[in-house]
Amino acid sequence: MDKAEPRWLSPTEQSAWRPLAALLFRLPGALDAQLQRDAGISHFDYMVLSSLSEAEGRTLRMSDLAAMASGSLSRLSHVVGRLEKRGWVRREACPGDGRYVNAVLTEDGWAKVVDTAPGHVAAVRRLVVDALSPAELAALGCASGHVLGEIDKAPK
Amino acid sequence: MDKAEPRWLSPTEQSAWRPLAALLFRLPGALDAQLQRDAGISHFDYMVLSSLSEAEGRTLRMSDLAAMASGSLSRLSHVVGRLEKRGWVRREACPGDGRYVNAVLTEDGWAKVVDTAPGHVAAVRRLVVDALSPAELAALGCASGHVLGEIDKAPK
Repeated sequence: MDKAEPRWLSPTEQSAWRPLAALLFRLPGALDAQLQRDAGISHFDYMVLSSLSEAEGRTLRMSDLAAMASGSLSRLSHVVGRLEKRGWVRREACPGDGRYVNAVLTEDGWAKVVDTAPGHVAAVRRLVVDALSPAELAALGCASGHVLGEIDKAPK
Repeated sequence: MDKAEPRWLSPTEQSAWRPLAALLFRLPGALDAQLQRDAGISHFDYMVLSSLSEAEGRTLRMSDLAAMASGSLSRLSHVVGRLEKRGWVRREACPGDGRYVNAVLTEDGWAKVVDTAPGHVAAVRRLVVDALSPAELAALGCASGHVLGEIDKAPK
């Protein structure tokens, strides 16, 4: 640990960081609440199901899905195990390379995404997309992309 | 549920929403990892301890702390219970009105915040504040504030 005096945030920096830090807790909570109420699934479940629904052959390697969804393979395995019990996903060895495990969206899983998407997109519009001007939304997307780039650079 | 055709996101809206949705999983994960590694606490724990450290008398009502931190009083009670066991927080009846419970930061809790803050601010700088231009950071803060406003308006 560097023993130099920490570079505390300036008041201007704090006034931007505080709402973002609050958003990191409250927006997932709000999206989770909508999905739990309307579809009985979490936001993380929905990210997994919708990522599979958009993938070629409705199939992704577990490791790629973990990287997309949040980075932790053990957390993902737990979630996919639950989705498998509900009949929405199945796991199988990658046909080309048995060292890898694929997650595949079932027909029931596809139907679940189709049922769930309209209510979820309405919540995303109400809370985020329609709440901001096009310029604000674009700026939020760009800034999020830059932060994701820094997270990718960080040591695991 | 409105039976009209859902208003799906346009490609431009999707290109902003996707990185933000990814950020909602990955930034808390990155901040949690730093805090767990360097201080043995979660990002939520840190939000609670640092909020108390900045409050008058290092004291907040549990209900106000829940609203600040994420909105769920039951989740907060669980977290504060854990922080209490570690000697960093104590709960007591509000002196002015016994119907309310206060959370108070102990001396050990204060020392924990003082120890933890430099490493955490360095992570926040590296991942967010120093990764963005001042204009991008300000735009991110404003947009976050607007989304929080929408979340506050939503039915509980």
